[in-house]
Amino acid sequence: MSTLQITGGTVLRPDMTAREADVLADRETGRIVEIGDTAAGEETLDASGCLVVPGLVNPHCHVAMTLLRGYADDKPLDAWLREDIWPVEAALEPGDIEAGTRLGAVELLKNGVTAIGDMYFEMPTVADVLGEAGLRARIGHGIVTVGKDDADARADFEEGLAVARDLDGAADGRIRTALMPHSLTTADADLVEEFVPRARDAGVPLHYHANETREEVEPIVEDHGVRPLEYADDLGMLEDGDFIAHGVHVDRTEIELLADRDVGVAHCPASNMKLASGIAPVQTMLDAGVTVGIGTDGAASNNDLDPFDELRDAAMVGKLGADDAAALAAPEVVRAATEGGAELLGFDAGRIEEGALADLAVVDFEKPHLTPAHDPVSHLAYAVRGSDVEHTVVGGEVVVRNRRVQTLDEAAVRREAEAHAEALIRRAEGN
Amino acid sequence: MSTLQITGGTVLRPDMTAREADVLADRETGRIVEIGDTAAGEETLDASGCLVVPGLVNPHCHVAMTLLRGYADDKPLDAWLREDIWPVEAALEPGDIEAGTRLGAVELLKNGVTAIGDMYFEMPTVADVLGEAGLRARIGHGIVTVGKDDADARADFEEGLAVARDLDGAADGRIRTALMPHSLTTADADLVEEFVPRARDAGVPLHYHANETREEVEPIVEDHGVRPLEYADDLGMLEDGDFIAHGVHVDRTEIELLADRDVGVAHCPASNMKLASGIAPVQTMLDAGVTVGIGTDGAASNNDLDPFDELRDAAMVGKLGADDAAALAAPEVVRAATEGGAELLGFDAGRIEEGALADLAVVDFEKPHLTPAHDPVSHLAYAVRGSDVEHTVVGGEVVVRNRRVQTLDEAAVRREAEAHAEALIRRAEGN
Repeated sequence: MSTLQITGGTVLRPDMTAREADVLADRETGRIVEIGDTAAGEETLDASGCLVVPGLVNPHCHVAMTLLRGYADDKPLDAWLREDIWPVEAALEPGDIEAGTRLGAVELLKNGVTAIGDMYFEMPTVADVLGEAGLRARIGHGIVTVGKDDADARADFEEGLAVARDLDGAADGRIRTALMPHSLTTADADLVEEFVPRARDAGVPLHYHANETREEVEPIVEDHGVRPLEYADDLGMLEDGDFIAHGVHVDRTEIELLADRDVGVAHCPASNMKLASGIAPVQTMLDAGVTVGIGTDGAASNNDLDPFDELRDAAMVGKLGADDAAALAAPEVVRAATEGGAELLGFDAGRIEEGALADLAVVDFEKPHLTPAHDPVSHLAYAVRGSDVEHTVVGGEVVVRNRRVQTLDEAAVRREAEAHAEALIRRAEGN
Repeated sequence: MSTLQITGGTVLRPDMTAREADVLADRETGRIVEIGDTAAGEETLDASGCLVVPGLVNPHCHVAMTLLRGYADDKPLDAWLREDIWPVEAALEPGDIEAGTRLGAVELLKNGVTAIGDMYFEMPTVADVLGEAGLRARIGHGIVTVGKDDADARADFEEGLAVARDLDGAADGRIRTALMPHSLTTADADLVEEFVPRARDAGVPLHYHANETREEVEPIVEDHGVRPLEYADDLGMLEDGDFIAHGVHVDRTEIELLADRDVGVAHCPASNMKLASGIAPVQTMLDAGVTVGIGTDGAASNNDLDPFDELRDAAMVGKLGADDAAALAAPEVVRAATEGGAELLGFDAGRIEEGALADLAVVDFEKPHLTPAHDPVSHLAYAVRGSDVEHTVVGGEVVVRNRRVQTLDEAAVRREAEAHAEALIRRAEGN
């Protein structure tokens, strides 16, 4: 057995208590084998002064959009997509997506993220990069049919299904897939009805944007006479294993539908605030038994991929939305950002216990802004930032050690991303 | 002339454009003397790969509350104060405030903060610590009369006035003062009427909490038949140079009153979200010509003192509050967090131009989460975090160099703060 021993730290347990313990991981199975006074591992990782937490899970992202970080801000979703983002995305080349995904992977790993959901384009390339980086991911080709003729629309769905079938299980099983029609208004309904059963036959779950803005909800209600998630249910898009992104404008019936169908929500508070989309009723969802994870969305609407920003945003804006300072309490958001996200993605991770996947983040608590430490869970929710992550472990493999990414060359990745971003904007703007 | 030259960086100018330039500061006057291709300084600070920005200004804080960081969360303001915060504060000893202020100063300086507004207790000690740390500050004794008999209430006001008179100009003029009655409902109105004219005679401005929660607004409207800021105006509490904290629940008339009286607002978005107080109408205030700064409030309701969190929060929640993604755009929040805050505190700082105080933060942009850099102002608003600050300069003196505080011993400060926090909680809880 090839093992990794994380020594001298304090470990956050699934019941949100923390106690001093070592953690022993088996690198062959990628799982935690012992917690407490463990046997010596072949490789060790020093966690003294640190809190060992489940790796953060970012269930909704468009990783390669790091290239567009700060390219366009301070606009509502629809105008921002049509005027700024989509024109640039139309000029994307595979090399751009490779460079942007690599940059995002470096950022995510350094911030303690061990698993992500990624919806984008050129997914074979994305799978290669995420595999090389050492991340765990559920990925899918973002299917958008608006503005496409029938043949192109169908081809996009075919690509989405092919990607989901072909890439599932890549990178020694770290890469899983989903069929990812962009949203209920941007992917053709007839094709959804045709391809969803084919995805089910292949054992592929669904992930899509839903109920993100008021502007997106209204036409569905007008055209179909039902709420968007009832409409999704009619299309067969709400089954156990599926998960949606956003769920900002959901009513009581839709929340009950999510709970009933066991369909989780990737809550993206920063993106929802930045695009003025609204406040998702997350406390109500949790109370109804809906599984909630916390996602960054793409870096262009955030503008970083720091899960600790999202944790804090979820707690903060959740209280405002519920008009209750007790809502989205620290343990609830920490659980959502770890176990909740893992559940959405279908990974046996997000909690530190024997048998679970050894996906871990080691957070250095010896910092002024984490002093004193009355309550480590409070600190995770309200004070820790991604730069406090000292080591990151995925499946027992050390992917970040002493804040240095082990799987990619950070300086080269930054240089390449800069060059690609510059060339991309030049092409898109026709200069 | 003893000079500091900041070399090789890109400088953010008051018009929110950035260009490569050196900055030369005169340490005797504490001011910027040259920007561009400057003469060589006696001391140099390497800013290559960095953005040189005005030092961040945190106009509303209770610095020593770092000791209570994470002690009590997820409760509304009134219950949180009465059940958790005030009982512990009643057990505070001067040594605790010294230790907590020192911890807060280390955190603030490392996060690029150069000037603060501080309302707390034991202000001669606070002035000493802030002076030693190298911060610029406007400070005042927090006058609270609820639950006090007449003599104690009067003594509290006397202390507030004495502190404001005696400490003004301390630390070579870096420390200025204000009379700081806690709020319109927690400081006796008769004593306000008596002491405000005495403060005016001494040339001392006012700072207080106002319109923070609905629960605070309603009794004033009921008892006095006017809105809280109209009531404050009747008490002579709205004059040029005064500034309030929060201003969450202000109506149109009150916003116009603030603009008319030239009274600024220290907006504290994180605290307002965490205590579910509400969303301040900041875009409306800015449009009406009110000067807005961005404050952290105390660490117990935040839970850190990172001005870049606040910047981002102000932009994010400001868009939600205005229901407009274009509200609180990046340049507006960056200006509020620098020039706006400096204006509230009455310091000739917050902008990098010749003649202004040389209060600066040097932000390392060579980070994955700041790559690519399409727009440095967007990054300041949405992606930079306090841990990206490489150097901090106050009045031409280097107080943080390469992320190390030069004026205080960080490790010792953390140890002392931990010991004081532990003893304080033990005393307060009667163990």
